[in-house]
Amino acid sequence: MTVAAILSEKGHDTITAGKDALLSEVCQTLATHKIGAVVVCKGDKIIEGIISERDIVRVVGTQGPSALDLPVTKVMTKEVITCSSESSVDEVMAQMTKGRFRHVPVVKDNKLVGVISIGDVVKFKIAQVEHEAEQMRSYITMA
Amino acid sequence: MTVAAILSEKGHDTITAGKDALLSEVCQTLATHKIGAVVVCKGDKIIEGIISERDIVRVVGTQGPSALDLPVTKVMTKEVITCSSESSVDEVMAQMTKGRFRHVPVVKDNKLVGVISIGDVVKFKIAQVEHEAEQMRSYITMA
Repeated sequence: MTVAAILSEKGHDTITAGKDALLSEVCQTLATHKIGAVVVCKGDKIIEGIISERDIVRVVGTQGPSALDLPVTKVMTKEVITCSSESSVDEVMAQMTKGRFRHVPVVKDNKLVGVISIGDVVKFKIAQVEHEAEQMRSYITMA
Repeated sequence: MTVAAILSEKGHDTITAGKDALLSEVCQTLATHKIGAVVVCKGDKIIEGIISERDIVRVVGTQGPSALDLPVTKVMTKEVITCSSESSVDEVMAQMTKGRFRHVPVVKDNKLVGVISIGDVVKFKIAQVEHEAEQMRSYITMA
């Protein structure tokens, strides 16, 4: 199963921030849209970085409240791990577990076309594995 | 399977904050321990509330950076959903999904004895369901 299956259910909406946004403004965006991370883009959805609520709390915890005045580019993750619609869900889940992050942007032709969260992956994965188990239970019952 | 199985692997360490902590101090605690939520306690591990990195980012986003000077008691969730070591993992997972939170304190005799995160639950659940599927695959192969 691929990322396309998740996006077809979840939709392709993406919430982004510009490179000149301050961390305090990113907090507003996260709060308004009730999300855990925003992708930082330039121009027409070209990915420059990603910043999560965890990144913000960590920098405030280590540098103090004045860190909220920092530009997002000073704190965001710049080496963004991305996937494509054709990536397998298992592969994306493994990337998240290994890298300890919760959001993976989906790109097509170098442009952002969606974001997959660990919640999306887990919901999908549990449904898939339980469906497989149910099919085998039926098979065993019939056998 | 019960919460006890997760705690036996993860341990019973709990990171707490006092009722007089400020949000800026909670950020320090979250950053230092690389965790996503702390339980607010009085006296000897009596739970008063819980606060997550999401709660902090939301209040900074809606009220501005000065919210970091608020006492934790103004922002924490006071009606804390808890579980016991005997609670089933499925039950705790359903509570998290329904309530849209990621951390559930484990209590015994009204005292905090551990914290289960959605990451813990998911890791455990996926291993369990895959183990079950593997067993059925073996059964089918032998049949």
